[in-house]
Amino acid sequence: MSLLVVGSIAFDTIHTPHGSAQRVLGGSASYFSVVASHFTQPRLVGVVGHDFPQANIELFQDRGVDVRGLARVQGETFFWEGEYHRDMNTRTTKAINLGVFEHFQPVLPGEFKDSKLVFLANSAPETQSKVLDQVDRPELVVADTMDFWINHQREALARLLPRLDGLMLNDSEAMLLTGETNLVRAGHAVRKMGPKFVILKKGEHGAMLFSDEGVFVVPAFPTEAVVDPTGAGDSFAGGIMASLAADPERKSGRLRRAMAYGTVVASLTVEGFGLDRLRKTTRTEIDHRLEQYRQMMAF
Amino acid sequence: MSLLVVGSIAFDTIHTPHGSAQRVLGGSASYFSVVASHFTQPRLVGVVGHDFPQANIELFQDRGVDVRGLARVQGETFFWEGEYHRDMNTRTTKAINLGVFEHFQPVLPGEFKDSKLVFLANSAPETQSKVLDQVDRPELVVADTMDFWINHQREALARLLPRLDGLMLNDSEAMLLTGETNLVRAGHAVRKMGPKFVILKKGEHGAMLFSDEGVFVVPAFPTEAVVDPTGAGDSFAGGIMASLAADPERKSGRLRRAMAYGTVVASLTVEGFGLDRLRKTTRTEIDHRLEQYRQMMAF
Repeated sequence: MSLLVVGSIAFDTIHTPHGSAQRVLGGSASYFSVVASHFTQPRLVGVVGHDFPQANIELFQDRGVDVRGLARVQGETFFWEGEYHRDMNTRTTKAINLGVFEHFQPVLPGEFKDSKLVFLANSAPETQSKVLDQVDRPELVVADTMDFWINHQREALARLLPRLDGLMLNDSEAMLLTGETNLVRAGHAVRKMGPKFVILKKGEHGAMLFSDEGVFVVPAFPTEAVVDPTGAGDSFAGGIMASLAADPERKSGRLRRAMAYGTVVASLTVEGFGLDRLRKTTRTEIDHRLEQYRQMMAF
Repeated sequence: MSLLVVGSIAFDTIHTPHGSAQRVLGGSASYFSVVASHFTQPRLVGVVGHDFPQANIELFQDRGVDVRGLARVQGETFFWEGEYHRDMNTRTTKAINLGVFEHFQPVLPGEFKDSKLVFLANSAPETQSKVLDQVDRPELVVADTMDFWINHQREALARLLPRLDGLMLNDSEAMLLTGETNLVRAGHAVRKMGPKFVILKKGEHGAMLFSDEGVFVVPAFPTEAVVDPTGAGDSFAGGIMASLAADPERKSGRLRRAMAYGTVVASLTVEGFGLDRLRKTTRTEIDHRLEQYRQMMAF
């Protein structure tokens, strides 16, 4: 099934205790698309500036990403610079330049309007809603959000939530949104705000799914080779949505299997700077790690 | 197989955002024994003061706990008072009186010297070593420890570690002990210090096992009814050791199944103040929740 992602494309400068990377390709839609390209041919909608090299566009194309929704406009590409602390779980933003992303109003090419699976990467809830208006008859719509929108555009977010099948957000954001201090209660409370299912991301501690099948918990795949955590959440989303797109049967437990795929690809992402590790991996390696992951939890 | 636990018995006064409990029966050996009594007949070694009511001893006896190693001496029983913060994950100790526990030198009754499974609950590593000296031929020895001993008795702890089959400790303590900031590397590094396997406890995020079978991760059982987290770690240990004692076959994956039991009983513990919930539960309920837990992770 066709899979659409609308999100950011950025240059990231990343500092970690183990090394640095300068102006590498990043952004939610980049991570999502490269992950998804291992499962399907995702449709990408995003914006870049005049400084965005053709080589990066070819990188997407070579992986089968449909870039007809990629706008290249006058101005600078979104730039982010961040530094990870010693524990690799927290980070400080050192510089940010939204560039052409700041006033980006995504326009879907006509060929993308029939997309069946839609992922609205983190952006203003109103922008996410306007994207949704452009899709004819989506079968599964999932959005990501963050604390900034919960704090500053709560009403727009509240209007978006009932239009979603799924919402993904961090554990702390779910507590912020609902006022609950227990994660299980927070997850249930977010569902009551509209989305049919909710995925709480807990970083290195895994994730939780709340749906009409109950609560499902997944630990992170334990990797000791954490090089750069950037993009883990978007990779997780990409693995979920793309494995669903590649497995369209509406069976029970489908979302749970998708989350396992998301977990495994996220663990690959963090093993390299930027998109390095994701570009090197193969579907065979992903499936092999999925099997390891399954065995790791069996009892 | 016979299961021995040596640890603290205490009165706890517990404050949470949802209520309080005054001088309820607590301590590591109490939680461990009551959990273990659902699987086997644990042997308890500990000390209480003259203020310890006979009714509490009968509570243990009624559950089949062998209390021949319970010393009752002149002085006050260990007392702890703590307050949980709003997130229920962190707490502040408001009062502590070690009482008779302070100079406790555990002496095993002759009948306990043939114990096959031994759990050394958190105490000074030298005391734990002296207990071990008294056991004839244990088959599985597991100890708990904490940051205080890592900081103040590191050498005694280093001497104990090679004598252990397993060590249990919190994630932050494993990092403190090894200097590693990545949990997977920390777990492997603790193993190199002596114990055959290491269990890292991550509280509401579950636990990790490092053994010669590899790394095994278990999420916590998600419960929304967290009333009082006191004793969760000792209950986890009790579920692990007692389910091993009740299932003596040395099969692959045995520790993993034991950790699932530990997870499930810990989730019951936190649903009531002190030992309330544990005393009410049944082996049937434990097994039912284990099945729920298994389904919750299946994909």
